[in-house]
Amino acid sequence: MAGNTFGRNFVVTTWGESHGPAVGVVIDGCPAGLEISTEIIQAELDRRRPGTSAHATPRREPDQGRILSGVYQGRTLGTPICIVIDNRDVRSGDYDDLADKFRPGHADLTYHLKYGLRDHRGGGRASARETAARVAAGAVAQAWLDKFGVNVLACTRELGGVEATETDWGAVVQNELLSPDPSVVDKMKARLAEVKRVGDSVGGVVEVLVRGCPAGLGEPVFDKLDAALAQAIMSIGAIKSVEIGAGFRAARLLGSENNDPLTPDGFLGNNAGGILGGISTGQNIVIRAAVKPIASIAVEQQTVDLNFQPTTISVTGRHDVSALPRIVPVCQAMVRLVLADHLLRQRLARVEFD
Amino acid sequence: MAGNTFGRNFVVTTWGESHGPAVGVVIDGCPAGLEISTEIIQAELDRRRPGTSAHATPRREPDQGRILSGVYQGRTLGTPICIVIDNRDVRSGDYDDLADKFRPGHADLTYHLKYGLRDHRGGGRASARETAARVAAGAVAQAWLDKFGVNVLACTRELGGVEATETDWGAVVQNELLSPDPSVVDKMKARLAEVKRVGDSVGGVVEVLVRGCPAGLGEPVFDKLDAALAQAIMSIGAIKSVEIGAGFRAARLLGSENNDPLTPDGFLGNNAGGILGGISTGQNIVIRAAVKPIASIAVEQQTVDLNFQPTTISVTGRHDVSALPRIVPVCQAMVRLVLADHLLRQRLARVEFD
Amino acid sequence: MAGNTFGRNFVVTTWGESHGPAVGVVIDGCPAGLEISTEIIQAELDRRRPGTSAHATPRREPDQGRILSGVYQGRTLGTPICIVIDNRDVRSGDYDDLADKFRPGHADLTYHLKYGLRDHRGGGRASARETAARVAAGAVAQAWLDKFGVNVLACTRELGGVEATETDWGAVVQNELLSPDPSVVDKMKARLAEVKRVGDSVGGVVEVLVRGCPAGLGEPVFDKLDAALAQAIMSIGAIKSVEIGAGFRAARLLGSENNDPLTPDGFLGNNAGGILGGISTGQNIVIRAAVKPIASIAVEQQTVDLNFQPTTISVTGRHDVSALPRIVPVCQAMVRLVLADHLLRQRLARVEFD
Amino acid sequence: MAGNTFGRNFVVTTWGESHGPAVGVVIDGCPAGLEISTEIIQAELDRRRPGTSAHATPRREPDQGRILSGVYQGRTLGTPICIVIDNRDVRSGDYDDLADKFRPGHADLTYHLKYGLRDHRGGGRASARETAARVAAGAVAQAWLDKFGVNVLACTRELGGVEATETDWGAVVQNELLSPDPSVVDKMKARLAEVKRVGDSVGGVVEVLVRGCPAGLGEPVFDKLDAALAQAIMSIGAIKSVEIGAGFRAARLLGSENNDPLTPDGFLGNNAGGILGGISTGQNIVIRAAVKPIASIAVEQQTVDLNFQPTTISVTGRHDVSALPRIVPVCQAMVRLVLADHLLRQRLARVEFD
Repeated sequence: MAGNTFGRNFVVTTWGESHGPAVGVVIDGCPAGLEISTEIIQAELDRRRPGTSAHATPRREPDQGRILSGVYQGRTLGTPICIVIDNRDVRSGDYDDLADKFRPGHADLTYHLKYGLRDHRGGGRASARETAARVAAGAVAQAWLDKFGVNVLACTRELGGVEATETDWGAVVQNELLSPDPSVVDKMKARLAEVKRVGDSVGGVVEVLVRGCPAGLGEPVFDKLDAALAQAIMSIGAIKSVEIGAGFRAARLLGSENNDPLTPDGFLGNNAGGILGGISTGQNIVIRAAVKPIASIAVEQQTVDLNFQPTTISVTGRHDVSALPRIVPVCQAMVRLVLADHLLRQRLARVEFD
Repeated sequence: MAGNTFGRNFVVTTWGESHGPAVGVVIDGCPAGLEISTEIIQAELDRRRPGTSAHATPRREPDQGRILSGVYQGRTLGTPICIVIDNRDVRSGDYDDLADKFRPGHADLTYHLKYGLRDHRGGGRASARETAARVAAGAVAQAWLDKFGVNVLACTRELGGVEATETDWGAVVQNELLSPDPSVVDKMKARLAEVKRVGDSVGGVVEVLVRGCPAGLGEPVFDKLDAALAQAIMSIGAIKSVEIGAGFRAARLLGSENNDPLTPDGFLGNNAGGILGGISTGQNIVIRAAVKPIASIAVEQQTVDLNFQPTTISVTGRHDVSALPRIVPVCQAMVRLVLADHLLRQRLARVEFD
Repeated sequence: MAGNTFGRNFVVTTWGESHGPAVGVVIDGCPAGLEISTEIIQAELDRRRPGTSAHATPRREPDQGRILSGVYQGRTLGTPICIVIDNRDVRSGDYDDLADKFRPGHADLTYHLKYGLRDHRGGGRASARETAARVAAGAVAQAWLDKFGVNVLACTRELGGVEATETDWGAVVQNELLSPDPSVVDKMKARLAEVKRVGDSVGGVVEVLVRGCPAGLGEPVFDKLDAALAQAIMSIGAIKSVEIGAGFRAARLLGSENNDPLTPDGFLGNNAGGILGGISTGQNIVIRAAVKPIASIAVEQQTVDLNFQPTTISVTGRHDVSALPRIVPVCQAMVRLVLADHLLRQRLARVEFD
Repeated sequence: MAGNTFGRNFVVTTWGESHGPAVGVVIDGCPAGLEISTEIIQAELDRRRPGTSAHATPRREPDQGRILSGVYQGRTLGTPICIVIDNRDVRSGDYDDLADKFRPGHADLTYHLKYGLRDHRGGGRASARETAARVAAGAVAQAWLDKFGVNVLACTRELGGVEATETDWGAVVQNELLSPDPSVVDKMKARLAEVKRVGDSVGGVVEVLVRGCPAGLGEPVFDKLDAALAQAIMSIGAIKSVEIGAGFRAARLLGSENNDPLTPDGFLGNNAGGILGGISTGQNIVIRAAVKPIASIAVEQQTVDLNFQPTTISVTGRHDVSALPRIVPVCQAMVRLVLADHLLRQRLARVEFD
């Protein structure tokens, strides 16, 4: 139980089901005196908001984040910050015929087996809607990161098998798929349209880049910065793999190739992805995560009902064709939460604080 | 600070530096009445022990695990179990000329930047020797898993670019490289010998398979079972990527390919790797992790000294050529710790306990 | 930071300032399948509600607890339960002239020193209004305790120097001061009226009695049941002392007097207050706590302003004359939270669960 | 389970049974660069050591604290500090006839009920010997407190009904009973001798005084400084009540009497005991705790055996006549641990750190 909290000193607890009254988050441990506004939270929520693209769910949620506590006259009080996002455009009726069937690739079965009961409407707690709360918290975390000049970028590195081979971070915000390579955007869109036509879905790869991270973040041995990032990223529903720096490729390098040589001007290379021994080096931190295809598809699939009798299912509610690009700001938010926590923890590392 | 503890209810804290008097572990939260002996701990420690192969460090450590508390008359008391493993074959002199240089690919620099001082001898706390304590704890965890029939297997899936394409779990313990494919063992050995000759090192891939895991383990939303496994595995020094089930491959599948259909007889396929929505399905859990090449190599590398002046380094101490196969039981131990913790947590999931 | 969470497995986080939009609580770790309704929460909130007596603040708050998550069709889902209580009857203007003065006996100065800024309106986070959230959580905890037949009673043992020497637990709910001794109620009321007339305030003693607590609750060594209760009770703003069983009196007894002899029919005596070695014995648990007089008084007092210049203050807002009896359900709630948590933890104590 | 850890950022885990090989402690989160030596730990252990007085147990333990990790060249590394204290003078045979009887006033019965088995020798984990580990940790904590000029004093305020009415802190270390009032030492000794003669035991009152504590320590709302102190003190086996400042007496004061007026030169009075709203004011912190009489007495008492059949018991092993004065350094240690933790936590309170 009690797995809805993340972080040790910058502590985030999300709550809420997809079709309940609201989702939300409590942030405990945000330092006092930080400038926070509804606007900076809303800006991030808008990036994750549904109903904004042809490829995304048409569920129309204004996703207004309301701050209920912890902020006074535009600054944090040092007390818990509660942010609530109401659920408005709920069409629970769409899910009536899913109440007694388990959707393949979904948490329906496992929640049922774990708890003995579940809120089947819209996936309940397992809905991606829960990530709106993470994004709101990530916006607060970023305000804290700003004090250190830490910048967290994220993009769609691959979508439906189409890879972005070029990297222009400035281009990311200029296309709705958040590709860092403008030349592949049309190909990605075509792939999404093609898959949507046949009622299927695709996955892809998210890349997160952290610039300006101070050296020294990360706590040996179990709370290494890369371990914390791995947990953070893998805790997002659709993610099935995570890698840091050279990642999987490191398995096939020689030590002499993989080690990043040190010079007075810094490292030559960044196979380490900005983390050595679980502690940030001051270089860019590079994380990649594989996103599985959306499990809700119109294509008919074999499944079982509540009595474990065979049946078929075709999920026809309002769903994205791909978790990308909407999952990109969620990954970004999770990385922000990790860094916000470890920036605080690093204040405790030495007798002399500087 | 305070990152040396893992788990929420089955709580493991390791301590110790490579060249200090000892390394060890305290396990708090192990249920009372469990049969534990020095022998079952020793058996696991022996699997990780150095000095047992031509490819591994010749450091000769008996690695005797002594139980100092928490066990009485062969059974756990419900009180903390402290296990100590003395450091015996310490040749700190080997590291004298490393005291004022940062080894590339190592935590030397980052510990220095984080803490302002470090125990440079043998890597100090960042040494792989710390993992002996994890392995000892994993043996205790396994005794608890045994009550549920949970079996955690692990193997060397790839080594120095040589992949084990066949999978015979029975073969794993019959070759010293822990390959599940006996046909590639000689090729792996040749690769290790070749690399050793030139003073270099290689990485590889570890695979962990969990059989008999009950459905229902894992806590939404941040403590999903896969998130906990990702943190656990990524907290091992040399690991740079982790994936569950289809893993990275899922990014390139269609939803209709990736979803595992449900039938009254179970799932057809296991792309989910035994985990849906962060909760175990009852299928096998499949984890793969990429291991980077050992950073300590005789090949001369560029680096800097404590004054950040350029210099070169050739690490000639006693080192493995590859973290595999010795890292395999460490991965196994970490998975055991995760499952032991979540088996306890699952006792709390419902009003009615069964 | 991050001190707004209580409990390890039944985990409660409160949030909210007195004059912000709302106060509330997130409960994470409540087992799935528990029957919960708005009504059982409201019944407890009503017991703590202001504006119901001549001696209490006339602030009129409906204190409606709204469940925003974690409950579906009247049963807990195993997911976090968020309960919100809006702040309605806020007269922040009453506090305008307190913005630049520190009220003696209040947290005004210490919040200022700690955080560098504060929400002075109504005491902000330090307001007793925060305890409404605890009471709501306590109602959920009690639903869980009901499964074990655990009953938590509480009363006003002493008020303004008037002691309740008799103990009739049935009488407690029949007088508005929650005295277990009906014969002293008039005297207590007279004392309150007298003190109110002169613009002063009084304290008293709360007693909590737990009936039906199973043996075995409490975790050696730092999370002893009495240690957890002491933290829980002392975390209530106005409480300055806490004792278990014979409490302070035990300091003056002989061992032969203080030890409760054991017989096949149970203990003879309960100086231990139901707890031995930090673990419940199965007897009644008895806790007493001293409540200081309300710090907000009309009597003029010496104090300093924000520039630490001398001034005087007379606090004339809407305040209770005594924290009792309204603090009684708060103590009750905190004891419920402790027991709810330890009932869960006890599920983890042994290999064999029964 | 897992209740053997204390603190959130300065994290202390004790382990060990009275008659096992050793007791010990792991301290995780101690800042790097702190000067620590075996000597400062030993000095504190010696203050708690048995066998040093006519009134204390004649068990002769050298109580040598050995540092196994976390300290290199006399300074903390930022890694976990493990300290081990071997058990030497173990006469487990003394306890043979206690194996099947529950000693009144002891944890024998409750451990049995909780865990289903126990190490009966010397009280096992419930033995006061566990507190040696706390004292060792407290010595490390004090080294950290020294950086802030925080001084933690403690004394025997009352013993066997004999109260120390005068307070000369300099006198405390000059008498073996740690009385702050030299004029009552003989009377206290006479009381101890008298009680010893009849095979009985007595309790008393410990007082702890913290000088030089900075303002701002303590975390609203559940981790208030007084709440943390209450848990810390009540977690010591023999303690049955704890009070801060005016403590119980506050229940009988008027608000105008209890509030400490504020002046530019500080507070007039210290009924608050140095803590307002759970946060330190910068004044002295004053804590008092009632200690019950030692439960092990030679006087024959009624009890039951393992089959819950009636029997009698007379405990004739090696025992103190009173937990005082040996419990005094334990209380001191616990207060040090709380302050060490909160000094770290306060580093996280504000955006701007100073």
